[in-house]
Amino acid sequence: MPQDPFAWIDERAAVRRAAGLARGLRPRPAESPLLDLASNDYLGLARHPEVTEAAAAAARAWGAGATGSRLVTGSTELHAELEAALADFCGFESALVLSSGYAANLAVVTALTGHGTLAVSDAANHASLIDGCRLSRARTAVVPHADPDTVAKTLAGHTGGAAVVTDSVFSVDGDAAPLGRLAEVCRAHGAALLVDDAHGLGVLGPGGRGAPSAAGLAGAPDTVATVTLSKSLGSQGGAVLGPARVIDHLVNTARTFIFDTGLAPAATGAALASLRLLRREPRRAARVRAVATALHERLTAAGLDAVRPDAAVVSVRAPSPDAAVRWAAECRAAGLVVGCFRPPSVPDGVSRLRLTARADLTDGQLARAMEVVTGTAPVRG
Amino acid sequence: MPQDPFAWIDERAAVRRAAGLARGLRPRPAESPLLDLASNDYLGLARHPEVTEAAAAAARAWGAGATGSRLVTGSTELHAELEAALADFCGFESALVLSSGYAANLAVVTALTGHGTLAVSDAANHASLIDGCRLSRARTAVVPHADPDTVAKTLAGHTGGAAVVTDSVFSVDGDAAPLGRLAEVCRAHGAALLVDDAHGLGVLGPGGRGAPSAAGLAGAPDTVATVTLSKSLGSQGGAVLGPARVIDHLVNTARTFIFDTGLAPAATGAALASLRLLRREPRRAARVRAVATALHERLTAAGLDAVRPDAAVVSVRAPSPDAAVRWAAECRAAGLVVGCFRPPSVPDGVSRLRLTARADLTDGQLARAMEVVTGTAPVRG
Repeated sequence: MPQDPFAWIDERAAVRRAAGLARGLRPRPAESPLLDLASNDYLGLARHPEVTEAAAAAARAWGAGATGSRLVTGSTELHAELEAALADFCGFESALVLSSGYAANLAVVTALTGHGTLAVSDAANHASLIDGCRLSRARTAVVPHADPDTVAKTLAGHTGGAAVVTDSVFSVDGDAAPLGRLAEVCRAHGAALLVDDAHGLGVLGPGGRGAPSAAGLAGAPDTVATVTLSKSLGSQGGAVLGPARVIDHLVNTARTFIFDTGLAPAATGAALASLRLLRREPRRAARVRAVATALHERLTAAGLDAVRPDAAVVSVRAPSPDAAVRWAAECRAAGLVVGCFRPPSVPDGVSRLRLTARADLTDGQLARAMEVVTGTAPVRG
Repeated sequence: MPQDPFAWIDERAAVRRAAGLARGLRPRPAESPLLDLASNDYLGLARHPEVTEAAAAAARAWGAGATGSRLVTGSTELHAELEAALADFCGFESALVLSSGYAANLAVVTALTGHGTLAVSDAANHASLIDGCRLSRARTAVVPHADPDTVAKTLAGHTGGAAVVTDSVFSVDGDAAPLGRLAEVCRAHGAALLVDDAHGLGVLGPGGRGAPSAAGLAGAPDTVATVTLSKSLGSQGGAVLGPARVIDHLVNTARTFIFDTGLAPAATGAALASLRLLRREPRRAARVRAVATALHERLTAAGLDAVRPDAAVVSVRAPSPDAAVRWAAECRAAGLVVGCFRPPSVPDGVSRLRLTARADLTDGQLARAMEVVTGTAPVRG
């Protein structure tokens, strides 16, 4: 009998089960009676009729898929229109759309750092930035979370090209990076600043123009931002924003751009419709921030250990992975979906509930959600 | 004045221009008068009304985006339905849908190889498999193209877990991997076989069930396949097919699955509609193979250096990058879009035109395409 090459998988699964860390998929129906405080649909646009109709119209006009790499047959005028609209809205010279934010981050980090350069990466960065650093030929220095002084010291000890790589808003705790200070440090050392604004677009900055805009970095010649189209814009995909020469460089060298099929027309059209909606209704960005602040105030008032949100994500600590899972399950039983983050998805090993604010939550829904979360909490103040 | 961190980009761009290797995007209109022999829409389904209507209906019913990671809010019953349909059609126990084939390959290689294991990778593998090996903690041995004997020798020299990583159909020359021999070698050494069937699904095997099915490997306990939803299925996304325990392992550990937004409902619904269509009309798979064979026969009869196609891709060599670009441009001027592959997209440095067969090409279109390609060729036999 041949040897079983996957026997080790069963052992790993047993270890996960024993540690209470096994995860499974839970497919949801099209119409759920549950209240959603777990998705990244921050502006409530994923099911907005203008956005879903734009997706439908794009599929009909352009086809269900892009049919090839963006460099072969996969670039449509719809992609070009979205890229122009994103660059204009966020205040950058140029933009490039990829099939996911993950792909966009891999593209930026691998194509803009290389042999002999130094990538300085925040310890709490998203997996896609970490994988970008791993794939890059650059030397990577992981620095403590949100610590511009250590970034400065690390850059000072290096001769040659360098890039500082950071999320603008960290996905686990919802706290913001010190972008202004990081930009100063980068300029002092001639380093590039690569910012993943996945959780900032649509939430931060004037009318939701994003964290680089809020920090006065939009369009800066040494700053490159990535965004996702799958969070505030309610669609799918990612994009890079930066100087035209950087975008041209990515078109010519970024493997996750060149060797991937272009974003589907439906997703492209939906993101474009969301962007137009956001431009027309800038109050959505202010509303999601107000909802996040209200969530935090009520959680803290109930004695829970919640992190003050800098954007739409509100994180609440749980005493253990098991307690977090039970807490989330009790919320669900009471009609509320919340995120439950456990190892290995949390860099510090601390399990938490992760609540996300949405601009379309009513005050009544907000009150109901807080009643459920505080009423089921394993630890009281 | 601060130092310019992107000055080196201009130097690289100048080198590319001087070498005739600069590339730019050429967005296409919704309705093009050009004949397409460049896309990967092998079965002509990307614009099939049943498929585009399914995309539109899914966007309306489920929203424009999945709204989160598949482990949080991003799994819908539509995803589960597509996964069941893919597993059933291709003959595997289980399936997992990701946002791209690139993401699927990164997931498989990184999650199924690791510290102390050996990844044996074909020299002509797709960029996503190469990046998967680079991201993996495994030691990677790159072996000569389509050389099972060297794979066997490489495995024989290793103690511990191992995986053989290969495309089923290589994207540049359209030739097939010796899957049967590779599977024998894997079994003799207890190694896993990881096959990227991006260009096989919909084209090879009974009714387009793919290369693993054609090789008798569908559902094998030691074989894992990836497919794309963006080629024969005319949509976007990727999927992994394999034993249920492997899929469960990916759900729990694969970073490009866990830390990415789920595939958009429109792309999910479109792929499901294409799969149903293909099951109903299995002749589409036979037709695309016949078209590819006809393309090769006519190119060879005209004295051109074309590679005998094992699937839908037909590669024709050009004497230089410049000649390839001029040839493709002349084809375009005559109304025909063909792929033009140049360094760094070709592993051997040889530039070529890349023609792709489509099941919906008429005999008249085929004749016209061949007239243009042979009539504009830089080298005659």
